[in-house]
Order: sequence, then C-alpha cells, then structure tokens
Amino acid sequence: MASPEIEALTQALARLPGLGPRSARRAVLHLLKKREVALAPLLRALDAVNDKLAICSTCGNVDTTDPCSICADTRRDPRLLCVVEEVSDLWALDRSRLFPGHFHVLGGRLSALEGIRPEDLSIDKLIARVAVGGIDEVVLAMNATLEGQTTAHYLAERLETYPVRITQLAHGLPVGGELDYLDEGTLAQALRARRPVV
Amino acid sequence: MASPEIEALTQALARLPGLGPRSARRAVLHLLKKREVALAPLLRALDAVNDKLAICSTCGNVDTTDPCSICADTRRDPRLLCVVEEVSDLWALDRSRLFPGHFHVLGGRLSALEGIRPEDLSIDKLIARVAVGGIDEVVLAMNATLEGQTTAHYLAERLETYPVRITQLAHGLPVGGELDYLDEGTLAQALRARRPVV
Repeated sequence: MASPEIEALTQALARLPGLGPRSARRAVLHLLKKREVALAPLLRALDAVNDKLAICSTCGNVDTTDPCSICADTRRDPRLLCVVEEVSDLWALDRSRLFPGHFHVLGGRLSALEGIRPEDLSIDKLIARVAVGGIDEVVLAMNATLEGQTTAHYLAERLETYPVRITQLAHGLPVGGELDYLDEGTLAQALRARRPVV
Repeated sequence: MASPEIEALTQALARLPGLGPRSARRAVLHLLKKREVALAPLLRALDAVNDKLAICSTCGNVDTTDPCSICADTRRDPRLLCVVEEVSDLWALDRSRLFPGHFHVLGGRLSALEGIRPEDLSIDKLIARVAVGGIDEVVLAMNATLEGQTTAHYLAERLETYPVRITQLAHGLPVGGELDYLDEGTLAQALRARRPVV
C-alpha cells in the first residue's frame, strides 16, 4: 500500500471530472517521478488560484479578480452581452475569440424536473444590467436542449420591454457534420433555417 | 481569456498523463466551483506529498518515507522478492494484494534501441540484495514485451549463481479474454503452456 499522503492525493485527483482511480494513479506517479517539472508547478498554480479565487460580481464568471478579466477588459464592446447557462459555456465561447462583448452567467437553466425556477438563476441581475442601458444586443447562448431553449424563451419575454436586440445562436449542421450521422432534430432545424446559396 | 493564474493551473493539469487541454479545463472549472471540497483537499494532498516525497533506497519505490511503506512492512515475507521494471508495475502488483513479499524496481528495461544497458538499471543493487542472503525466490515480473523478456533472461543469468529460485509470471489468456480477439503471440504462449485439466 502506498503511504496515506499518496493515497489522499490519488483520491483528490480521482474526484476530478475526466479522471478515475486508474488515471489518477498514473497522474500521481507522474507527479512523483517528475517532481520539479510536474509536481512543483502544479502545486504553485493551485496555490495561486486558491489564494485569489473570486466570482465576478458583475457577470458571475469564476476568475482570480473581481470584476473578472473579461468584464475589466476595456477593449471589449460593452454594447454586446452574451447570456450563457454556465461558466464552462462562457469559457467555451471565449476560447473561440469570436465574441467581442461581455457575458452574463445564469448559473443554470430553468427546469421543472429539477425544480429550478427563475429566482434560482441570475436573471434579476441580468435584467438590471440591461435596464441600466448601454447594451444594444443580448445574445441568448443557451444550450440547444429543451431546457436551454425554454430558458431562452423565458429570457426573451422578460427582456422584450427593453430597447435591445435579442438574438440567439444559429442551429443547424455542426462543422464536419455528416447528415447520415445527425439526429432528426438537428436535420429539422437545419432544413427549417435553410438559406439561399448566394 | 482567463487570468494568468487560471491559465497556469490549466496548463499544469493538462501536462498530466490522461488529461489534455480540454479535460484540464473541465477539471479546473470543477476545482474553481468546488473550492472547499475539491480545490482545498487537492492542494493539501499535493503539499503533503511534495513535503515528504522520497525514493526508497532499498527497492526504488516512490513513497513519502525511506524505507518505503512496503519495505518497512514487517508483515511481508522477506524471502520473496519481486522484480519489476517501473514503480507503476510495483503499484499495479501491490494493488492486487496477491504478492506478500518485497519488491525491487529496475527503473526500466534493457533496450538496444534506446541504448539502455544493464548499468543504467538498478541491477547491481538487486544482485547485492540477493547476495546478502535470506531471499528464497526472485519473481521476474517484467512486461510481456520483447524488451521485458530480454531483461528477464539477462537477470536470470546474472542470478543463477545464487541459491534462489527464479520464477516468472505466467503468460496466457487474460481473464475474460476471448480467443477471437487475442493476438497470435498470446495464443501461442497459452497453447505452449497448456496444463492438464485436473
């Protein structure tokens, strides 16, 4: 048996999404064998993040500063606001570097099944941000799931009294998608939203 | 873009075996969202291991004590010695809890291709341990690869002048293995080592 310290490290790593007991053990072994280039940097990085961890009080992003680095970035367009369900969605969209505006994290989606109601999400805060003015367009970037779309519809209704353009992400074939492998829902969306070949 | 601290943590995690940039990002997000139950325990565990990390001067195991917890375990049978290529092999065998003796980690395998010669491995130390006496059986638990088996043959030759029994792991069908899916090498081994049905 490995020592209790090593066992504890293995268990802490095994609880991370994407790692199981087996891969955690492999990771621990790697950390132990490469102390200077793997263990020490990871320890320093974790320590720094733990020290500074903050939830952005404006948009709900998780970062090491409040306001977060996106809200504080003056090169971004404050007239564009993209609403997402989770922080992971914000990160995914931000990674694409295609959206030059700001974000708003709801912290989930409306769900009758899970009993998640509007007051459980950061919706009032969103309305307040829009009510202040200065925002021209709100992009509803919910997941293309039933609950995501329900949430988008609800938000669209709540926002329609404000002088903003409300848009949503396009639905259709994913890049590289082969018709034969796509579900009927996606095909239906792609057909319904078909556009003229210029 | 995430803050530099979060980027650094993502990169440190992405370098672990079994994690890539995408899963590292998911793991970081999990750590950030579950600070108390995920980030803090991982940080403590890493810190403890980093503090105490030691290579066992007897067997070559990586642990938080020297001698390691296996070498120090008096309930283990000192007359049985199992030789493995890597620490990961030791851990794999130890996890099975089927081997009650001690271990010896070579730190690799002989390889003409990679230029790894006997003096690059912990072989002299192994011979010294056997020469001291008190060991009845040396189990050569090399991988079932060409290089592993070459290493095993070399060790068997080096050890034959000592009064110890030299054994190796059985080769054959893995548990649950279906003949149709197994390679010819395994099938040949399984056939050659066939045993009478009691």
